Amino acid sequence: MPEIRQNIATKDWVIIATERAKRPEDFVKKVEKKVIPEFVQSCPFCPGNESKTPPETLRIGKDDKWQVRVIPNKFGALSNEGESTYSFEGLERCTSGVGVHEVIIETPLHHLTTAILPVPEVESIIQAYLGRYQSVSHDSRIEHIIIFKNHGESAGTSLEHPHSQMVGLPIVPSHVRHRVEEAMRYFDDHGECVFCTMLKEEIASKERIVFESNEFVAFLPYAAFSPFHIWVLPKRHAASFVEISPAEISDLAYNLRTVLAKIYHGLDNPDYNYVLNSAPLDTGSKYLHWYISIVPRVSKAAGFELGSGMFINAALPEKSAEFLRT
Amino acid sequence: MPEIRQNIATKDWVIIATERAKRPEDFVKKVEKKVIPEFVQSCPFCPGNESKTPPETLRIGKDDKWQVRVIPNKFGALSNEGESTYSFEGLERCTSGVGVHEVIIETPLHHLTTAILPVPEVESIIQAYLGRYQSVSHDSRIEHIIIFKNHGESAGTSLEHPHSQMVGLPIVPSHVRHRVEEAMRYFDDHGECVFCTMLKEEIASKERIVFESNEFVAFLPYAAFSPFHIWVLPKRHAASFVEISPAEISDLAYNLRTVLAKIYHGLDNPDYNYVLNSAPLDTGSKYLHWYISIVPRVSKAAGFELGSGMFINAALPEKSAEFLRT
Repeated sequence: MPEIRQNIATKDWVIIATERAKRPEDFVKKVEKKVIPEFVQSCPFCPGNESKTPPETLRIGKDDKWQVRVIPNKFGALSNEGESTYSFEGLERCTSGVGVHEVIIETPLHHLTTAILPVPEVESIIQAYLGRYQSVSHDSRIEHIIIFKNHGESAGTSLEHPHSQMVGLPIVPSHVRHRVEEAMRYFDDHGECVFCTMLKEEIASKERIVFESNEFVAFLPYAAFSPFHIWVLPKRHAASFVEISPAEISDLAYNLRTVLAKIYHGLDNPDYNYVLNSAPLDTGSKYLHWYISIVPRVSKAAGFELGSGMFINAALPEKSAEFLRT
Repeated sequence: MPEIRQNIATKDWVIIATERAKRPEDFVKKVEKKVIPEFVQSCPFCPGNESKTPPETLRIGKDDKWQVRVIPNKFGALSNEGESTYSFEGLERCTSGVGVHEVIIETPLHHLTTAILPVPEVESIIQAYLGRYQSVSHDSRIEHIIIFKNHGESAGTSLEHPHSQMVGLPIVPSHVRHRVEEAMRYFDDHGECVFCTMLKEEIASKERIVFESNEFVAFLPYAAFSPFHIWVLPKRHAASFVEISPAEISDLAYNLRTVLAKIYHGLDNPDYNYVLNSAPLDTGSKYLHWYISIVPRVSKAAGFELGSGMFINAALPEKSAEFLRT
């Protein structure tokens, strides 16, 4: 009998289709991997081509030998110029598309990926995220910041060179608003952050833990919406990523890198997305809890998902966690 | 300057990225189309192979010459046996995966697709939807019914023979709950169904209309989340698809077939999904309004969409509508 599980934090239901359950190893794609060179002359993100990108907003590393660079997205979805204005006429409700859209170039080496980078270099990436997050959060036009990574073509990357992106939005997406509301309701009912509750139960049960470090826990949520859908949560309650401490940055680098390496080796370098979910800028500090959500692209969404907002997961989260843990 | 538009019914925001706007014709994929035969011996949905499928739940047409067949999905995500039970233990909140998962075989001919079927045959498909919807809505375990179609591989089809699917769920997805709440709030504020308001404004402005028939209007929503994202709405207010009249069935067949033909010819037979969105079974009749949402697969969702629940649409809905209209 399949199960329909609900994530108590997001209230999203997922069908765990155990009847057609696959073993975790069945999700390993047997595709021949392309050999990627360390340097590509035509790549705008490779060293030596710095002048081909818009001017940097942040650089980590010595001038002549950078480690991470952050630049405005040349094909950004939003414009950095102008004011945020609202225009509400009948059903035509819109705001000007002002905001921030930047690219974080994660390493000078074209062929590397976070899963195989040394931990201190992953730390530099997180430091760059934080630096830009802090800075953009002071922009009064911005209401919400999303940091995400698309790894591989089926995850939506158009450029091979390792990079992630940051978008600062002048509105709060309805999806995010609903999460805030759910978290507030849980807090009102229980006097505690729903993510903190979840974390305690996950640590106690151990079943779905992928990797636990000093400050972070990586686990498959009870209602993971796809095989290997993983949350990396800070143990200390904090609604916003901006509250991360220096010790937590080092530990997150270690945890994230370990989890991505488990996915890289266990599933043969699948395409994936990750998203850093942080509270909207103008939200209370008690309710939400920031975290990174990792989604390897091993299954496909279609009409059912589109119509219901639900997913069908063909693998038991407990089994997937066990597979990655060992 | 890009715009961020909000759909007043769903409250979803979308970035209309006019800076990188493509012309509608740029979304036409230049791929060589496979020639599909009229009959495939190994296809379980082709005539003569009826015994390879589970027993029918509905058939339209004469016994020896059927037009539409509905069968349980052999690899269904839910089990039709058993009771709907709830188990809420701490964060482990789940229900048994009972429900209905059926396949609607739309035509005996393997190579056809709705866009090129005669209108009376499309009418038979809609009649089959209605017959099964009515029947499943009497199953006390079922809370919500979704009918959808995945056309083409990138839209999630694994079988080539034209078919759609129906899923009856023992819960109401959170995504759908939020829509009901939004619709109720609008009704409380305005004394009118938000979709009825939208329809009136769309008909008055004409800008985004793709095709209007006696009983239905097909248009791109003001905040269409992807190029050629189309809603087909009944003009008469009705929360549930089950309320459709015989005259509306004929007119919907004509409207849907016309719109799918415009997409088929205008965009060179792209992969697409459509979803029939109807109110959850146990909802009031005033607030929601059923409709079909069509989403041609001409763009890809990645980390940004995953994290924000928002989309970036690289085409102006008004321009896309104009392209399809003519």
